[in-house]
Amino acid sequence: MHTALCDELGIEFPIFAFTHCRDVVVAVSKAGGFGVLGAVGFTPEQLEIELNWIDEHIGDHPYGVDIVIPNKYEGMDANMSADDLKGMLQSLVPQEHLEFGRKILADHGVPVDDSGDNALQLLGWTEATATPQVQIALQHPKVTLIANALGTPPADMIKMIHDSGRKVAALCGSPAQARKHADADVDIIIAQGGEGGGHCGEVGSIVLWPQVVKEVAPRPVLAAGGIGSGYQIAAALAMGAAGAWTGSQWLMVEEAENTPVQQAAYAKASSRDTVRSRSFTGKPCRMLRNEWTEAWENPDNPKPLGMPLQYMVSGMAVAATHKYPNETVDVAFNPVGQVVGQFEKVEKTAAVIERWVQEYLEASGTLNELNEAAGV
Amino acid sequence: MHTALCDELGIEFPIFAFTHCRDVVVAVSKAGGFGVLGAVGFTPEQLEIELNWIDEHIGDHPYGVDIVIPNKYEGMDANMSADDLKGMLQSLVPQEHLEFGRKILADHGVPVDDSGDNALQLLGWTEATATPQVQIALQHPKVTLIANALGTPPADMIKMIHDSGRKVAALCGSPAQARKHADADVDIIIAQGGEGGGHCGEVGSIVLWPQVVKEVAPRPVLAAGGIGSGYQIAAALAMGAAGAWTGSQWLMVEEAENTPVQQAAYAKASSRDTVRSRSFTGKPCRMLRNEWTEAWENPDNPKPLGMPLQYMVSGMAVAATHKYPNETVDVAFNPVGQVVGQFEKVEKTAAVIERWVQEYLEASGTLNELNEAAGV
Repeated sequence: MHTALCDELGIEFPIFAFTHCRDVVVAVSKAGGFGVLGAVGFTPEQLEIELNWIDEHIGDHPYGVDIVIPNKYEGMDANMSADDLKGMLQSLVPQEHLEFGRKILADHGVPVDDSGDNALQLLGWTEATATPQVQIALQHPKVTLIANALGTPPADMIKMIHDSGRKVAALCGSPAQARKHADADVDIIIAQGGEGGGHCGEVGSIVLWPQVVKEVAPRPVLAAGGIGSGYQIAAALAMGAAGAWTGSQWLMVEEAENTPVQQAAYAKASSRDTVRSRSFTGKPCRMLRNEWTEAWENPDNPKPLGMPLQYMVSGMAVAATHKYPNETVDVAFNPVGQVVGQFEKVEKTAAVIERWVQEYLEASGTLNELNEAAGV
Repeated sequence: MHTALCDELGIEFPIFAFTHCRDVVVAVSKAGGFGVLGAVGFTPEQLEIELNWIDEHIGDHPYGVDIVIPNKYEGMDANMSADDLKGMLQSLVPQEHLEFGRKILADHGVPVDDSGDNALQLLGWTEATATPQVQIALQHPKVTLIANALGTPPADMIKMIHDSGRKVAALCGSPAQARKHADADVDIIIAQGGEGGGHCGEVGSIVLWPQVVKEVAPRPVLAAGGIGSGYQIAAALAMGAAGAWTGSQWLMVEEAENTPVQQAAYAKASSRDTVRSRSFTGKPCRMLRNEWTEAWENPDNPKPLGMPLQYMVSGMAVAATHKYPNETVDVAFNPVGQVVGQFEKVEKTAAVIERWVQEYLEASGTLNELNEAAGV
């Protein structure tokens, strides 16, 4: 399991691991993959702390940082500082939505605290708040890749990243989006099928991947959405992908910060227990279906707001989730892909990578044996 | 591209082609694959004519017949003859729904004729109407496989098919459904991802296939949903499938009866232009999104009925589609999977099979080269 992209990035296996946990970034890169830290939830100051910690622990291995600048969001044309934008957006959140969010939590016996830092958070969902994250990331030499999770990054950001000698990646859910990325000189296109956890489109991976490979060839494409084994990686590479972009699996490793109750929920879930819901971030995002997602799906209730307004409401649930994990799993934000149905236990990160490599060899061996038996 | 299942069935390639057109059945089997005739729309008398024609033209090659007995449908516990069941079900169709269906057609300038044979059709969607189809199929020695498109076939039907020396296959959309099939001694499990055309579930192929392979091993699994190239077949076989069950591609071959205007609509569509809709059959079924599907999705309009009642309404649109193909594409039933985005032109069936074999060899060669370069 080694592609030309591995040589370009100086890694052994083309396994890209998206995670919000610095420990997982380090464990993946040290095991021969490429860890990518999701930055959206960190303030610039927190991000600096995380990246310093990674630098200290990752040895000579490279890693990446993932940001979120959507192609469309509330306030995108406001041209304001991050603080002014936050204030302006906060004024757009209807009281009805805040009260409905508080009511869901209260109905489930969850203490509501949406004051202080928990109040109406903006996070890194905008160019104004993501740009400082990129500026910080580029001060860390081992960060060799910046990925944008939603849409083509702004041209000046691509230039800034390229000028600093790093690569740019961006996710897409259709060949048309892939074309926009390629035309903007995004180096690595990540094609994510609708099975995927977090923000995703509706086209399934088995259909999407080869279309995107064909659209942007010879630019390298990472296959995303539905990968949680070496069998699935073999399928992706057979269809022309240069590697795999994975997320859900890394919620189920010992190094992850996910709580035992959340990991138990993932272990129990089948592939039919996820839903694409706008109830946390304002854009369709795949997660475990629970009472928070159901409440916002009900047409009798307030409709989810757009990005980034909806998170200003749901942030209170996320904050409560972290503070009271055992009480809140039914209303918590549990992003994960349909591949969750494969996961039965929590493993060590290095053991996952080793297992995937073996499964990959088994899968490629299957095709070999069929060809040999057929006299090819 | 040859698996153990090919030897069991006496075919060259594990390419199973679902189609409503007898010409395509013949062309696929003669090209080394396995044609399967979808019987649901045929009366027993018509089916007998089709199978006789196939027998005359297919040479010594085997083929299959696909029926539809859902696990749940209106009237399933009625224990009535086909004629009585039809009468009983017709009485359950609300006038409001019939009038709404007529209005959609009239609004699009389509002449409505729902009298005579076009009135409130039952088709083969029930055990009472599918059983005669199976009885007829089993009188044709070259029919070596009976597949059920929705759910586990009734136990006495499985016994009847096995006693006649044929194999039984059944589609599923989850490992739990696959387990039910295997426990009922279904010989071949067809795992269809949510990308698929026609009736399908929600779990994507890349996630579903390996789960079903694991669940029913060593029973053979056919991968379905999203296959329209040899690259996708290679992905399926690498993940342990014994072959590919395909449908959408066969709408786009010269031998198909699909009209030029319908084929033009398929050629133009992207993978985002399909929808899982209950508006034709009463169960979620993937098809091109159009004004008929949109009308039934609108919450201000009547909700689709269950199976088989909804087809008693939509049958008038299907009949008009056949009679006035050029006028009705916006309200016609155009079942197809997301893989439609790959299709740009109409090909000969034999050329498709040949192309798929070459693409398969290319894809398996890709993995081979990666392994060789990595010194495996």
